[in-house]
Amino acid sequence: MNPAKKIDLPDVQSELSSSNFRLTRVGVTGVKKLVRIKRPNRESILPLVVKMDLFVDLPAFQKGSHMSRNLELVSEIIDPDLQEPVSDLESFCAKIARLLLKKHNYATFSEIKAEADYFLDVVYPSGKKGVEPYKLIAEARATKEAEEIRKLIGVKVIGMTTCPCAMEIIRKLDSRSNRFPAPTHNQRNLGTLMIEVPQDNTSVDADDLIKIVENAFSSPTYSTLKRKEEGELVLNAHKKPKFVEDVVRDMLSEVLKKYTEQI
Amino acid sequence: MNPAKKIDLPDVQSELSSSNFRLTRVGVTGVKKLVRIKRPNRESILPLVVKMDLFVDLPAFQKGSHMSRNLELVSEIIDPDLQEPVSDLESFCAKIARLLLKKHNYATFSEIKAEADYFLDVVYPSGKKGVEPYKLIAEARATKEAEEIRKLIGVKVIGMTTCPCAMEIIRKLDSRSNRFPAPTHNQRNLGTLMIEVPQDNTSVDADDLIKIVENAFSSPTYSTLKRKEEGELVLNAHKKPKFVEDVVRDMLSEVLKKYTEQI
Amino acid sequence: MNPAKKIDLPDVQSELSSSNFRLTRVGVTGVKKLVRIKRPNRESILPLVVKMDLFVDLPAFQKGSHMSRNLELVSEIIDPDLQEPVSDLESFCAKIARLLLKKHNYATFSEIKAEADYFLDVVYPSGKKGVEPYKLIAEARATKEAEEIRKLIGVKVIGMTTCPCAMEIIRKLDSRSNRFPAPTHNQRNLGTLMIEVPQDNTSVDADDLIKIVENAFSSPTYSTLKRKEEGELVLNAHKKPKFVEDVVRDMLSEVLKKYTEQI
Amino acid sequence: MNPAKKIDLPDVQSELSSSNFRLTRVGVTGVKKLVRIKRPNRESILPLVVKMDLFVDLPAFQKGSHMSRNLELVSEIIDPDLQEPVSDLESFCAKIARLLLKKHNYATFSEIKAEADYFLDVVYPSGKKGVEPYKLIAEARATKEAEEIRKLIGVKVIGMTTCPCAMEIIRKLDSRSNRFPAPTHNQRNLGTLMIEVPQDNTSVDADDLIKIVENAFSSPTYSTLKRKEEGELVLNAHKKPKFVEDVVRDMLSEVLKKYTEQI
Repeated sequence: MNPAKKIDLPDVQSELSSSNFRLTRVGVTGVKKLVRIKRPNRESILPLVVKMDLFVDLPAFQKGSHMSRNLELVSEIIDPDLQEPVSDLESFCAKIARLLLKKHNYATFSEIKAEADYFLDVVYPSGKKGVEPYKLIAEARATKEAEEIRKLIGVKVIGMTTCPCAMEIIRKLDSRSNRFPAPTHNQRNLGTLMIEVPQDNTSVDADDLIKIVENAFSSPTYSTLKRKEEGELVLNAHKKPKFVEDVVRDMLSEVLKKYTEQI
Repeated sequence: MNPAKKIDLPDVQSELSSSNFRLTRVGVTGVKKLVRIKRPNRESILPLVVKMDLFVDLPAFQKGSHMSRNLELVSEIIDPDLQEPVSDLESFCAKIARLLLKKHNYATFSEIKAEADYFLDVVYPSGKKGVEPYKLIAEARATKEAEEIRKLIGVKVIGMTTCPCAMEIIRKLDSRSNRFPAPTHNQRNLGTLMIEVPQDNTSVDADDLIKIVENAFSSPTYSTLKRKEEGELVLNAHKKPKFVEDVVRDMLSEVLKKYTEQI
Repeated sequence: MNPAKKIDLPDVQSELSSSNFRLTRVGVTGVKKLVRIKRPNRESILPLVVKMDLFVDLPAFQKGSHMSRNLELVSEIIDPDLQEPVSDLESFCAKIARLLLKKHNYATFSEIKAEADYFLDVVYPSGKKGVEPYKLIAEARATKEAEEIRKLIGVKVIGMTTCPCAMEIIRKLDSRSNRFPAPTHNQRNLGTLMIEVPQDNTSVDADDLIKIVENAFSSPTYSTLKRKEEGELVLNAHKKPKFVEDVVRDMLSEVLKKYTEQI
Repeated sequence: MNPAKKIDLPDVQSELSSSNFRLTRVGVTGVKKLVRIKRPNRESILPLVVKMDLFVDLPAFQKGSHMSRNLELVSEIIDPDLQEPVSDLESFCAKIARLLLKKHNYATFSEIKAEADYFLDVVYPSGKKGVEPYKLIAEARATKEAEEIRKLIGVKVIGMTTCPCAMEIIRKLDSRSNRFPAPTHNQRNLGTLMIEVPQDNTSVDADDLIKIVENAFSSPTYSTLKRKEEGELVLNAHKKPKFVEDVVRDMLSEVLKKYTEQI
């Protein structure tokens, strides 16, 4: 493609805007890419199918945002011929956030949100090894003024809660239940935990966040369980009844306990 | 709009198809319309927000199907100025199925699928009155040969099952549980029941189908319950542990029991 | 149900929380109810299938939020035996927001979000009358301090944009296109407009907001169009090419123009 | 875990069913696993995040299906310590289908459905290299009688169609358009192509199916395009106007042309 020729092409986006409103977020959402993650202290490459939203702001004077640049940028970052694999999802987002401001020289703010299926080796109660699915989430925001980029890392984890309220009521209603553990109903919960981390974060790891969320439930859930394990899991869940409010607060307590020094 | 002029307009759909394949289903999906239902033995009009899929087949010789006719048709049927309200959702589908074959004179088959939120007055265990949400579903299929139109009516109902397997295991694991009701885990289920009804159906009513599905669960669920009612509901669910397989089979038994004579 | 008996029942939610975090939003989401709207200057009752999220905050000292009260409240408000129909969706939300703070005497903040399918009579380009689907959205937030409740009203509207960038490029690429209207590609867009309104709002009407969004697109879209109307609609859309950025800004201009005096 | 102890545990699923209905499909849906694919003639391992539905039938006499066995099975198949990577998604499904009948000795039928995000290296019109997202789909069905397992392989591909009908109408409406290419409206389509393949399939490859679907559209779509490329793509799409009916038929023609010998 002849660059001279390109110059002739109209750049409608760069025309003056009819009305004088600055738009805070213009971009593309739901972009799917295969991203190779190379964790510092691990051999293997972790492949992630990442779903992304990418935004920049648009100054009042300019008609349109060059959205294709957002995806050009992502393509270059994940191109194995051009790039080293990134060390984690939030650094990947931070890198994009910074480069978006370069590509869109008129932009003063950029924001990236990313989510990916994530699989973790687990040891089932039976001692058998397995793999369970989770979600990784990450965000990054960059502004032209501050050179610092805000980075967030998070996880989504499914777990089980047993209702303390129904359990106590049932103890009252059925004398035979007036001992531990009483029957109650349980819920399947999606717990989301997300925290901001420093630029040079090495202390906060997604796998630890997954453990924090999982431990905050009445019980974790597993995709595969032998009959006996399932019975024990349900029984243990009944020995640790929790409201979702308890789960959220216990997640917060654990985060503070674990990271107060570092963050 | 001058009809003479219209005749001049090209009808690309009616051109000959390049290749010689008959297509079994061509149509539009996810069409939302407000449909007014007037049940035979009720005063009030029941307004339903109906989501529809509409299909006809396309003969091998013809290039395209006139899909806009599908929606024209629906608009006319639900237009209060033109039409009486229909008596139920499946009759609404049947009416469309029949008229689709008229509008698409080249079609030999038509199919309609419809789904709508549906709210039923219920009496809570406390004796308080309330309203609970369900889904109505309906289908109709017409063929040029047979004058009979196949009509299906159905419902989607949410309910609770308590796991009999975990309950038995826990009885073994915890001697104190070795009496009824033992703790177990429960699931939130979506039960779907759909049956074909005769042209002149008066015997099968959606409200009855909802009751059949609801009774097949370990317990119904309600959007609002007082503490005591909730405890009792959970306790009763534990006295009626069920696999989803049990639920489906009990739905079938009830349908046979209730409708064997009529259908 | 004997109230004396009720007093004996444990209220686990009201127990002291283990950890000392205030939770900003505790509640239920995706609650579906049939709400009857009675607009001031209209005869007929407008039935809406409303999907709601309801939240209150939870003080640091309290273990749990009595979520069932949220739905009890909604049930009472929409119970035709107890209540008059509300005048619009945002007033419905505001009413709930205020009463939530009464029911949860420990809460200092309440928030409601609501969405409903909405059908509007339209006149098609052909002059034929029809009905088109839209979405109504509303929000309300109440705080214990301020007696004022913040109310928002909004709409979601689907429409068409034709890309000005590709159109200009194509004019360069194909001399025959070097006149108006040139081919380009179009997008199907979901436009969302939401604005805060005063307590005693009478000036801002959802139907007007729908018109504002629809006019901001290159063209509205209709579920049913005759061939000629469809051709004219597409042609008109090509005479009004727009970026989504243009659409958003033109929506904002129109809102300012129409409501500057009132708001 | 002491096997002797296990024998004592009740097997509720294996109890006699209360009612006498055979269930045609009992299973689990939406199971997510990371599956490593090793294509015959390729070096690298292809990691796929696979979403699966797994079903077996349940004889009339038996109370429940041992659903946990379905997932146990999958875990073993994808466990790198136990297993070689499979050669493709449909073989993975076929392997599960066969083993499900072994694990559920009472079952006479098994069915697997799988879907996965899939990324393909493409060369953009500019000659630049990139990666585009697609969906792989596969199914397998096994029966106790026949030793043959039915295997299906398929793809989901997004592409663009330009409407031939509106284009012809516009030519009539606007004399200036009475030459090629005229403006029209375009749609974003999801094309799904799925075909049954023999046990020892080597001829049908997912990448070829993707090309077949992509070529059947008026134009493929790309996540990233330079302004000039985008203009050319849109222009080319207008030179090849198509109904979705045309797209489906052209897919079928291509499949017959390409595979008549082999299948």
